Amino acid sequence: MDPTTIAGVIFGFLLIGWAILSGGSWKIFIDYPAMAITIGGMLCATMIHFSLPQFVGIFSVIKKTIVTKIPSQSELIQLMVNYAAINKRDGALALEQEIPKANDAFLGRALQMLVDGQNGDSIRDIMSMEIQYLQDRHSTGKKILEFMGSAAPAFGMIGTLIGLVQMLRNMTSPESIGAGMAVALITTFYGAMSANLIFIPLAGKLGLYSKAEVTAKEMIVEGICAVSEGESPTIVREKMQVFVSQSRRKEVKANV
Amino acid sequence: MDPTTIAGVIFGFLLIGWAILSGGSWKIFIDYPAMAITIGGMLCATMIHFSLPQFVGIFSVIKKTIVTKIPSQSELIQLMVNYAAINKRDGALALEQEIPKANDAFLGRALQMLVDGQNGDSIRDIMSMEIQYLQDRHSTGKKILEFMGSAAPAFGMIGTLIGLVQMLRNMTSPESIGAGMAVALITTFYGAMSANLIFIPLAGKLGLYSKAEVTAKEMIVEGICAVSEGESPTIVREKMQVFVSQSRRKEVKANV
Amino acid sequence: MDPTTIAGVIFGFLLIGWAILSGGSWKIFIDYPAMAITIGGMLCATMIHFSLPQFVGIFSVIKKTIVTKIPSQSELIQLMVNYAAINKRDGALALEQEIPKANDAFLGRALQMLVDGQNGDSIRDIMSMEIQYLQDRHSTGKKILEFMGSAAPAFGMIGTLIGLVQMLRNMTSPESIGAGMAVALITTFYGAMSANLIFIPLAGKLGLYSKAEVTAKEMIVEGICAVSEGESPTIVREKMQVFVSQSRRKEVKANV
Amino acid sequence: MDPTTIAGVIFGFLLIGWAILSGGSWKIFIDYPAMAITIGGMLCATMIHFSLPQFVGIFSVIKKTIVTKIPSQSELIQLMVNYAAINKRDGALALEQEIPKANDAFLGRALQMLVDGQNGDSIRDIMSMEIQYLQDRHSTGKKILEFMGSAAPAFGMIGTLIGLVQMLRNMTSPESIGAGMAVALITTFYGAMSANLIFIPLAGKLGLYSKAEVTAKEMIVEGICAVSEGESPTIVREKMQVFVSQSRRKEVKANV
Amino acid sequence: MDPTTIAGVIFGFLLIGWAILSGGSWKIFIDYPAMAITIGGMLCATMIHFSLPQFVGIFSVIKKTIVTKIPSQSELIQLMVNYAAINKRDGALALEQEIPKANDAFLGRALQMLVDGQNGDSIRDIMSMEIQYLQDRHSTGKKILEFMGSAAPAFGMIGTLIGLVQMLRNMTSPESIGAGMAVALITTFYGAMSANLIFIPLAGKLGLYSKAEVTAKEMIVEGICAVSEGESPTIVREKMQVFVSQSRRKEVKANV
Repeated sequence: MDPTTIAGVIFGFLLIGWAILSGGSWKIFIDYPAMAITIGGMLCATMIHFSLPQFVGIFSVIKKTIVTKIPSQSELIQLMVNYAAINKRDGALALEQEIPKANDAFLGRALQMLVDGQNGDSIRDIMSMEIQYLQDRHSTGKKILEFMGSAAPAFGMIGTLIGLVQMLRNMTSPESIGAGMAVALITTFYGAMSANLIFIPLAGKLGLYSKAEVTAKEMIVEGICAVSEGESPTIVREKMQVFVSQSRRKEVKANV
Repeated sequence: MDPTTIAGVIFGFLLIGWAILSGGSWKIFIDYPAMAITIGGMLCATMIHFSLPQFVGIFSVIKKTIVTKIPSQSELIQLMVNYAAINKRDGALALEQEIPKANDAFLGRALQMLVDGQNGDSIRDIMSMEIQYLQDRHSTGKKILEFMGSAAPAFGMIGTLIGLVQMLRNMTSPESIGAGMAVALITTFYGAMSANLIFIPLAGKLGLYSKAEVTAKEMIVEGICAVSEGESPTIVREKMQVFVSQSRRKEVKANV
Repeated sequence: MDPTTIAGVIFGFLLIGWAILSGGSWKIFIDYPAMAITIGGMLCATMIHFSLPQFVGIFSVIKKTIVTKIPSQSELIQLMVNYAAINKRDGALALEQEIPKANDAFLGRALQMLVDGQNGDSIRDIMSMEIQYLQDRHSTGKKILEFMGSAAPAFGMIGTLIGLVQMLRNMTSPESIGAGMAVALITTFYGAMSANLIFIPLAGKLGLYSKAEVTAKEMIVEGICAVSEGESPTIVREKMQVFVSQSRRKEVKANV
Repeated sequence: MDPTTIAGVIFGFLLIGWAILSGGSWKIFIDYPAMAITIGGMLCATMIHFSLPQFVGIFSVIKKTIVTKIPSQSELIQLMVNYAAINKRDGALALEQEIPKANDAFLGRALQMLVDGQNGDSIRDIMSMEIQYLQDRHSTGKKILEFMGSAAPAFGMIGTLIGLVQMLRNMTSPESIGAGMAVALITTFYGAMSANLIFIPLAGKLGLYSKAEVTAKEMIVEGICAVSEGESPTIVREKMQVFVSQSRRKEVKANV
Repeated sequence: MDPTTIAGVIFGFLLIGWAILSGGSWKIFIDYPAMAITIGGMLCATMIHFSLPQFVGIFSVIKKTIVTKIPSQSELIQLMVNYAAINKRDGALALEQEIPKANDAFLGRALQMLVDGQNGDSIRDIMSMEIQYLQDRHSTGKKILEFMGSAAPAFGMIGTLIGLVQMLRNMTSPESIGAGMAVALITTFYGAMSANLIFIPLAGKLGLYSKAEVTAKEMIVEGICAVSEGESPTIVREKMQVFVSQSRRKEVKANV
């Protein structure tokens, strides 16, 4: 779990709260109808754009940006090296007892195929299709957050237009202009803040997680294929190290 | 039929209606000339951009985003497994009686080619070209909606410019500024609302439907080809399951 | 000739004219210096961007969006089927008398190569290069119109900036602000209107025409190649039908 | 040399000058600090973005958009036909005397390789890499101009923000607002004008020149390779004519 | 080290400082809460978007745009020519003493593989993957700077919205409008300036450095592979010269 997502959101709201309080009362920035039109309008547009399961899954997508656990690369390498050693010593069948220990359905399935005696190419083919699916699902989540990040300012502007038209129509005294304009601008403020502090950066984070998770899955595929070809633990470790960036290779070696 | 399209549009308009009513009369937001220039201008630009059949087809495109029925993946798999069983038991000719039962011209045509004894590769070639056409048609529909989503705010702005110039020219008293400005802004409001609540999300929904429909067609091609190669029902089911995302595979298996 | 281009432009201007007249006199919207700076500035930028022959060819590009005649797909298929019949009955040389009847230089050239006894592959190679050229020319025309569609609003804004600076500098009485501002906004109005009602939709239409014309040329190449390989009229018709969308295939068959 | 670049710039400035003069004095549009901040800020950002040699080369890039001479296609074809005739009559070595006459280092190098007896494939390989370099250099020049076209309006806006803050802070009488605002807007005017009348169209022109120059180089490679394979002058001319657009082929033939 | 990065930043700030001072006091442009909300908000969004190690690495990324040293192409060629001479004279093993002299881990690793007797293809495979990693790391750095360049103006606008709402709400006298507006605009000014003078150009510079560094690494791979195939120094020099642009080839030859 990467603490930056939550820390960034909290610090961002504290910062804006402080900026508001240092300039006056926070009460003028709380406007429930403005929230309803900005957030509600954005949710309606998102509902039209996406299907029901995708719309319902927004919260799990947002949760994913906070709690995703990317497996450590050095642990993955160590795991594969162990598998290679077991395979060399006792044969592929001895790996069957490792399947229940795998804390990842993807790794479990790859191991099962290895134990079943499938060759490297067919393991790679099938697992690559699974990785493809993973990327598709992640990219849908990213698209939802990006759409919310573009719809929120749009509905903020729509709310401001509604407020401006009402203010301008019912304008009785020049003094009332200021207050009416302030209320109208609140929706633009909500739209800009939710997009720039929440939806757009969360979409970016999801993209990073997706890349890291896909790399981990690719490491598993590469490792299992090497084991299935009967490579020695040393070769398996060497083959998997190309996934690790040079600056972190020493650290990985120290652990291995 | 996915209820989110209609629900989102209805909720969106209710929300904006509530926001308007909570701030005053709704009458100032109904302005027929403003509607004419925003929607009419957008339709004229769309007419120039697209051909007559495409322009006339806008309504069927919009209808498509509401009533499209994506075939269930598990039903498709079950169907192909049945075909494989019939093919194994009674030969390809026995599948002829299944053609009239196919509720999809695409499936019917693929079955016909199977019965006619064409081999897998030529079925795949011809049906892939059909899928290509489907994608082209869908992408034209999406482009029309996206163009409308960008033209509506543009004509909203043109309407506002007309209103502003007239107001500024005929400005006699400062009091009249407000009312004139309010009228001028209505077109911008119409443009932003129709684009963000209707055209842009509908274009996105059409894209999703297109992807789902293409996947269903690809499943049919994959299944029919497997049947034409004389695969057993078990193999056909396994081959088609790669199209199903992992989280829904159990559900599919349960149904199959 | 597709009537939508002209109809859209006429309806669009009628609509904007009606909107202007319903709000006051049309005279305040006619400002020759404003036209000069918006349209003239856009033409200067276009002249810098493109070469002299391209710049001079703008009018023929615009004309093309109005009068382009896309050959009917069913006529093309019928033509190729006839050629196949002649070829089968009297040999390729008998097609020589068809060359002068071809109302299209591209078709004429392809027929000539067929009569000269060139084989299918070399016909395809050379005619594909011609199609490539056609696409290049079309794409240049589209780029010119798109550039004009982005330059017109930019020079509209430049004109408004000039007007604003002059008005603000020479501001003597608050009453004069309105009139000065109205004049300044006229250039923005011209820029937005010409871009959104003319240049941007025309660029889109040119793209559609280009695609349709390229498809027609590809049908010719496919048909001539099938004839050159001595295919029977039935096979030629079947081969060409893959270019026709499913919904229109019956209509084509009826004609054929 | 294409006169459109210079003509467009001159006409554009004359037009804007006329628009300014028709509305009052030109003096209010000359503001040296505003020029310094718009042009200077843009140059500083360009300096940070690009390397020193690239930054210093801006003027040669701009000069290139004015004085580039694209070799005529018919002259190139004639040249290659002559080479083919010499090669046929006297052998490749006789082409050595043509090398000093080549007014283009690229053509000279290709001829040298031909005289040295290298075969067509290796000439094509090496000369293609040279073409690749040419495209890279051109694309850097285009990127610099495009960056300047986006940085100029940005620094125009920064200058306007500085002017607005100063005016609003020191606002003593409502009368002074107009003059202060006018001065503040001048930087936006400079930014919009330099970007839309100079940098953006020049970047486009550079792209066109790059394409034309690359086509000329590809014609040379194609021609020299055909000569190196001992093709007759007639075949060389036919092979090179595919580069010429159909409408200009007659003109080329007339010249050849 | 390229001096343009630092020179551009310094000149840019001097220019803006001069523009501010020429118009009045600089004090009104120093507003700590405005800095906090623009820079702080941007940092919070960046923290949410990227992972902790990436966020912490921002300073090293920025440092990289200032102090990166791109190896001279002529030195690289000379080095490879020397290696080729040693290899020809004393065999690959004699190159072992060159490894500690290599001032670049990448070059050292390539040399080690050469000494270990690996063939050209496997050196190329492994070193290409290292180059791939280098590009990935660089592209992440570029993405961070680009995100900061888009987040800074967004938070500048959010700060301005907060200031506007507060000013409009608490508006007591028309005189106070100016000062409140000036304060509100400061955040927009900070956002625009930091993005256009720092983040966007630095992202561009990083892209240029990345390209130059990758080219240098590719030259090393090409050279080492040529040496490993036992090519003579002359051939090695010729093979590497294709990386040098034509205009600088003479200079390189002079040095070599």
